[in-house]
Amino acid sequence: MKTYQSKIEITLKKSVLDPQGTQLQHALSNMGYESVADVRVGKFLEVTLSAANEAEAQTKLNEMCDKLLANPVIEEYKVELIESGAAANVS
Amino acid sequence: MKTYQSKIEITLKKSVLDPQGTQLQHALSNMGYESVADVRVGKFLEVTLSAANEAEAQTKLNEMCDKLLANPVIEEYKVELIESGAAANVS
Repeated sequence: MKTYQSKIEITLKKSVLDPQGTQLQHALSNMGYESVADVRVGKFLEVTLSAANEAEAQTKLNEMCDKLLANPVIEEYKVELIESGAAANVS
Repeated sequence: MKTYQSKIEITLKKSVLDPQGTQLQHALSNMGYESVADVRVGKFLEVTLSAANEAEAQTKLNEMCDKLLANPVIEEYKVELIESGAAANVS
């Protein structure tokens, strides 16, 4: 078993309105940052897990996103996988 | 003026407890994903802005993070800048 670190970006689909992002854009504009054209807000997760290989880790992470971490109806996600240096003990 | 797209990852500092992440880890474990060792939750922002050059865009984004988007006391952020294809009109 190897240990993998992953970064998951969960964002609203482009077709879904993002009122939080719009508010942030207005706030930035009021603060003098008028050059900001758009802000979209999402979630960022760092998940550390052990798996036999990279493909298994990727599959597990996609499952977790579909079942719990993201809402596939309105959100989309991107998983980036990094093998961490230390190999975990077989258990 | 060029148009830049940026991705901002805002995460809790390593020394700060993340109860939301711990809950997610427990939930995943209950769902059968016992190989998950750790989950950390952060924010993900996509900001589109116009600036004269990459250095200016980077400076502006760092300022925005320090002033509004992130809480520098407990959070740290990483800004990734992408020059988007279309150059905006000078205005």
